[in-house]
Amino acid sequence: MEIIEKIEDMRNKSRALREANETIGFVPTMGYLHEGHLSLIRMAKNECSKVVMSIFVNPIQFGPGEDFERYPRDFERDCRISEKEGVDYIFHPSSQEMYGEDYLTFVEVEKLSGIMCGAARPGHFKGVCTVVLKLFNIVNPHVAYFGEKDYQQLVIIKKMVKDLNLPLLVKSGPTVREKDGLAMSSRNKYLSREERKNATVIYTCLNLVQELIYKGERDLSKIKKEVLDRLKENESVSKIDYFDFRDPESLDEIEMIGKHGRILAATAVWIGSTRLIDNKIIEF
Amino acid sequence: MEIIEKIEDMRNKSRALREANETIGFVPTMGYLHEGHLSLIRMAKNECSKVVMSIFVNPIQFGPGEDFERYPRDFERDCRISEKEGVDYIFHPSSQEMYGEDYLTFVEVEKLSGIMCGAARPGHFKGVCTVVLKLFNIVNPHVAYFGEKDYQQLVIIKKMVKDLNLPLLVKSGPTVREKDGLAMSSRNKYLSREERKNATVIYTCLNLVQELIYKGERDLSKIKKEVLDRLKENESVSKIDYFDFRDPESLDEIEMIGKHGRILAATAVWIGSTRLIDNKIIEF
Repeated sequence: MEIIEKIEDMRNKSRALREANETIGFVPTMGYLHEGHLSLIRMAKNECSKVVMSIFVNPIQFGPGEDFERYPRDFERDCRISEKEGVDYIFHPSSQEMYGEDYLTFVEVEKLSGIMCGAARPGHFKGVCTVVLKLFNIVNPHVAYFGEKDYQQLVIIKKMVKDLNLPLLVKSGPTVREKDGLAMSSRNKYLSREERKNATVIYTCLNLVQELIYKGERDLSKIKKEVLDRLKENESVSKIDYFDFRDPESLDEIEMIGKHGRILAATAVWIGSTRLIDNKIIEF
Repeated sequence: MEIIEKIEDMRNKSRALREANETIGFVPTMGYLHEGHLSLIRMAKNECSKVVMSIFVNPIQFGPGEDFERYPRDFERDCRISEKEGVDYIFHPSSQEMYGEDYLTFVEVEKLSGIMCGAARPGHFKGVCTVVLKLFNIVNPHVAYFGEKDYQQLVIIKKMVKDLNLPLLVKSGPTVREKDGLAMSSRNKYLSREERKNATVIYTCLNLVQELIYKGERDLSKIKKEVLDRLKENESVSKIDYFDFRDPESLDEIEMIGKHGRILAATAVWIGSTRLIDNKIIEF
C-alpha cells in the first residue's frame, strides 16, 4: 500500500493506472475508519482492480463552533486497517495542499443543500461538494463509493455528478450498524457510556416509523408526533435538528402516503453534545 | 468537420481521441464567430492535433432583461467558417441537453466574480464558470483557449481550473481589433452606424491611460477623471459601468503606481443600448 500526500503525485499515479487499463475504485473518507468504511472498501475491491482511499478531514465542511478540531483522527491505525483490507493507495493531503493560501472556488447543489442537515449546518454541503469535486478531479476514479448513512450527501453528490457531467459512477453501500442498531459513525467515540446506551433510541424510532406504516398508519404527522415523543422522553436526547419524511430520490417532503410506496425517514439528533444522523428507507 | 449535439456523443468522441493519442484543443464560444474566435482556433490548430469548438449561447450567464434572446446567432455561417479554419468537431448542444429539467449545481469563484463585470451583472460569472466546467468535463481537452478581451473571465477561469484541480491547461489569445481599434465582439452587430463610429472612444481611452502613464502621471485618480470626462463627452456613451485599474493577476484594485510595473485598465461602457467591454495591460 502506498501513501500519497501530494496532488500532483496522486494525479500522476491515477494517470498511470488508467494507462495500464486498471479500473480505479475510490472511497473518500475523513479517516477514523469503522466497519462502514470497510464495507465500501470491500465493494470497491470487488468491483475495481485498484482501490484508492482518501483520508482528509475537510475543514470547509465544518461550520464555526463545530467539531473540526476535535474530530477523531488516528492515521496509523487507519493505515494498518486499510492495508489489511487491500487498499492500494491512500491519498492523504494536508489542508494546505488542498486549499493553499487564497482558495476561492466553491460548488453548490442548490435547494438540496438547504434542507435537513443543510438547514442545521449552513455551508456544510457546499464544503462537501467542493472537496468531493476536487478529489474526483485529482483521483479521476471510474467508480466512487459513499455510505448510505449520509443519505442526503449521497443524493447531493449523485446530483452534482449528473449536473456537472462528471465522467464517473457513484455507488453506495448500506449503513453498517452496531449489534444494538446504532449506525456506525466516527462520532460515536464522543459518547459517554450512558449516552452510548441511550443513542439506540434513534434506530428504535426509525423502526417505529416502519412498524406504524406496516400497521396501516398513513398520516405521517401522527407518526412524527409519536416518534418525537419517544425521542424527547430519552434522557440523553438534548436536541432534535429534524425528523423528516422525504422522497428517497428528490428529497421532497412527504406529508401523506398512499397504499404502496417508498419513503425516506431521516433524522439528526443530538445525544448530549454529539450530533448523530441516521435514516431508513421504508418500502410499503 | 463533424457536428456533435449530444453530450454522450461528444464524451465518446473525446475518449476515442485520447485513446488514439490525439491532443485536444478546445475553443468554447457562443458562436457568431469573428476574427477573435478565429485567432483562438488558429492557436489551437497550431498546438493540438484535434480542435473542438463549442457553440452554445449559455442561458444561465445572462441576467433577466439582458440580451440572451437577441444575442446574434448564425450557425450555418459559423460552420462554414470553422470548416475553412480546420476545426475538427463542433459541439453544439441544446439548452435542454445541457441543463435538462431540474438543473441545480453551480460553481462560483468568490470575490473575483463580484467585481467589475460581476458587480454590474450579478450571477454572470457563476453562469460562465458552471457552463465552462460542464464543457471541460464533456470535452475533456488538453488545452482550452480563451480571448483576452474577456480578461476578467480569463482570470476567473484560470482560478477555477487551479482551485478545482482540473487536468487541463488554459491559454489565452490577444484581443483582435477592427482597423479603428474597436475590440471585435459579436455584440458590435447591435451598433448603429453612428454608434459604431463613436464606439472607438473606448480604445482611445485605454490608449489615453497608457499615454498619461508614459508621460509620468502616477496618480490613477487623475487619469481616471480625465478618461471619464472623455467618455462622457461622447454622444453615444449612455452609461459607464466601470473604468478600473487593477492588478493583472489578482484583479486587486490599484490606486497609485510606482515607477515600474504592470497594470490592467479595464472598462465596460454602454454605447447606446449596447454594453461593450475592453481592456489593456500597460507595462511601464
